[in-house]
Amino acid sequence: MNNILRGIRIVEGSAFVAAPLGGMTLAQMGADVIRFDLIGGGLDYKRWPVTADDNSIYWATMNKGKRSLAVNLREPEGREIVAALIVKPGPEAGIFLTNLQVPPTLDYDSLKAKRSDLIMLKIIGNPDASVAVDYTVNARTGWPYVTGPENHKGPVNNVLPGWDLTCGLTAAIGLLAAERHRTRTGEGQLVKLSLADTAYHLTASLGYLGDVQINGTTRPRIGNDMYGTFGRDFTTSDGREIMLVVVTRRHIKALGEVTNLTACFHELELARGVDLNLEADRWKVRHELNDMVGAWFADKTLAEAGEALSDAGILWGPFRTYKQMVEEDPFVSTDNPLFGEVEQPGIGRILTPGSPLDFAANPRMEPTRGPMLGEHSDEILADILGMSDGDIGRLHDKGIVAGPDTACG
Amino acid sequence: MNNILRGIRIVEGSAFVAAPLGGMTLAQMGADVIRFDLIGGGLDYKRWPVTADDNSIYWATMNKGKRSLAVNLREPEGREIVAALIVKPGPEAGIFLTNLQVPPTLDYDSLKAKRSDLIMLKIIGNPDASVAVDYTVNARTGWPYVTGPENHKGPVNNVLPGWDLTCGLTAAIGLLAAERHRTRTGEGQLVKLSLADTAYHLTASLGYLGDVQINGTTRPRIGNDMYGTFGRDFTTSDGREIMLVVVTRRHIKALGEVTNLTACFHELELARGVDLNLEADRWKVRHELNDMVGAWFADKTLAEAGEALSDAGILWGPFRTYKQMVEEDPFVSTDNPLFGEVEQPGIGRILTPGSPLDFAANPRMEPTRGPMLGEHSDEILADILGMSDGDIGRLHDKGIVAGPDTACG
Repeated sequence: MNNILRGIRIVEGSAFVAAPLGGMTLAQMGADVIRFDLIGGGLDYKRWPVTADDNSIYWATMNKGKRSLAVNLREPEGREIVAALIVKPGPEAGIFLTNLQVPPTLDYDSLKAKRSDLIMLKIIGNPDASVAVDYTVNARTGWPYVTGPENHKGPVNNVLPGWDLTCGLTAAIGLLAAERHRTRTGEGQLVKLSLADTAYHLTASLGYLGDVQINGTTRPRIGNDMYGTFGRDFTTSDGREIMLVVVTRRHIKALGEVTNLTACFHELELARGVDLNLEADRWKVRHELNDMVGAWFADKTLAEAGEALSDAGILWGPFRTYKQMVEEDPFVSTDNPLFGEVEQPGIGRILTPGSPLDFAANPRMEPTRGPMLGEHSDEILADILGMSDGDIGRLHDKGIVAGPDTACG
Repeated sequence: MNNILRGIRIVEGSAFVAAPLGGMTLAQMGADVIRFDLIGGGLDYKRWPVTADDNSIYWATMNKGKRSLAVNLREPEGREIVAALIVKPGPEAGIFLTNLQVPPTLDYDSLKAKRSDLIMLKIIGNPDASVAVDYTVNARTGWPYVTGPENHKGPVNNVLPGWDLTCGLTAAIGLLAAERHRTRTGEGQLVKLSLADTAYHLTASLGYLGDVQINGTTRPRIGNDMYGTFGRDFTTSDGREIMLVVVTRRHIKALGEVTNLTACFHELELARGVDLNLEADRWKVRHELNDMVGAWFADKTLAEAGEALSDAGILWGPFRTYKQMVEEDPFVSTDNPLFGEVEQPGIGRILTPGSPLDFAANPRMEPTRGPMLGEHSDEILADILGMSDGDIGRLHDKGIVAGPDTACG
């Protein structure tokens, strides 16, 4: 959490990962992000992981730092409230982020008629606006056939929702760029961002489409080996696993020294006519290297191997489960200024990260928790739309807005 | 490619994925991004995939839209040239993005002494600035133990460098926010961004650390099944694979209809006491659902199954290799405005994406190729630093700068 974006307000109509992450990223930098949801919650309100009481840890943590408005979008009056929030005059307002199929009242043309310099960023699935989600996009972009054990048949899905995450961050970039443009020119605009395009863009930018077009090949599935160099997972004597990465000449020299394999590396170079200083040559003899280095790991504990590698300045990391992250990693604690420990209503006390961006001139503040659904309905209606207590009470009575879900209170 | 950021210049000293992606993201929005590299190229200049001539398709495509300066950083005069580019006066300049361990001439304090409103964004590995890369960070963040086939033992690495990608995009966000702050206040700053913090932030924001702290559990490895709902890969009669995703009530109803399984779904609900309208209940009986639905796919071709699912409005995607992406996906072509077909020197003609962000007021232009190493050395020295032809010739003669690598010309 920091305040570098204080003075920007974004109204967010969203579900799942991409748009909520885009909004949360800006909220954690001080923007006033108002997420509106249906009364009772939208499609992602119960998304896993959940507590024993069925409160979504995902929803709470993906919406950190936002304000929540619970509103009945099925009623014209509910839609008008959201529209009024979006088109509210002032340089701080007039920004709308969504990945929902919004009703006509909330489409770009209707809103623009009310505020000509509106910025609306719409996340769509495919470039033609047909629906797609991270899993269906990932299937189409080559990765599942190169992920997973070398001998495995069939696709292996990413569990990390990489396209949702990159799309959400790209949305934040798009909003900042459009706000900059508006500040300079007075001009607002509709910005479209396709989840699939994000995936195509990054897959192409890593060289894998060019590889097919120029070389006629697709990189193979190679298990945990790093492509085009030497690095992989090894098992230690205490049954733990370790990731070793060798990317420089200094690394391979140091690895030879720390493992007492320098002479063996040299023999291998002579026998196979390779130069282990070269990445492509290390790749060529990676199976031999894996065997040699694997034997060294096999009689060291994780602690012993890690200490030796660290002392030698070699890149490595222990594999850890989520549970081991929380229990073992010194950076996963409030000793790391990224994290605070925050009471999340309906959930409990949890490690809560602020923005990973550390701005010297806009210093880190305590991370802010996620809202309860509808927690800020009343203050938003009063402060931004200037409604009276009577007006607000009437909206509650009519079921147009709702306050915090007391089940989570 | 668009021009929404025209008028910003960023000097980038980088290698590998995160910082180059951050710079490329801004370059594809019209910023003037000058990447400097050692003469002969930096650590990532030959990164795979490469052509038969050992020209890196990765390097070319990850640096699209940038200008390239090849400079000898081992000589004081080379370092002074880079420093002069970074601290050049003017509102457009004074921004430095790096993930290198820079020499003292290029550290924040030295540069700030020459330009007090400097913005420098430094990508570091761990939060304490010790070295880490995507593979070692990913090992530590839980994902390898939940990725991969259900019965697999040991970790499964992401092949998609998800943390590099998210870190690079976060760097672009950080630069835009810091430039906004400088425009409003005149104040520059050092911004630090840790690759590992990016991974911690997103892993926590998806709820997986809270899950451990509140529930004491770690989500299991479940193969290609979607967590907490119903969705997975199925094999078709022509030996292809398909990803099916069911996230709404409408989806499960439509799936029953299109597969003629409505009655079977109802029997399953009665037998197991579940309601297939609920995500958690679909998850509970996913094995039964997998069997029923799998049998339907088994005697349909990919084309037949896909058409039926599309007509029914059900979310699905075919699994494709990178090669099949290029050959089969209509969006992976110049029919998609994301892509142009661009001649990349030393590589050939390849599908080249512009920015995935589509700004209505700053329309898409033809995507720009990557530079040749040193391609813009002379124009940068002349136009930005005002050097004469004689000065520039002298720098070439002394080996301080170099022009384009003719091997790639």
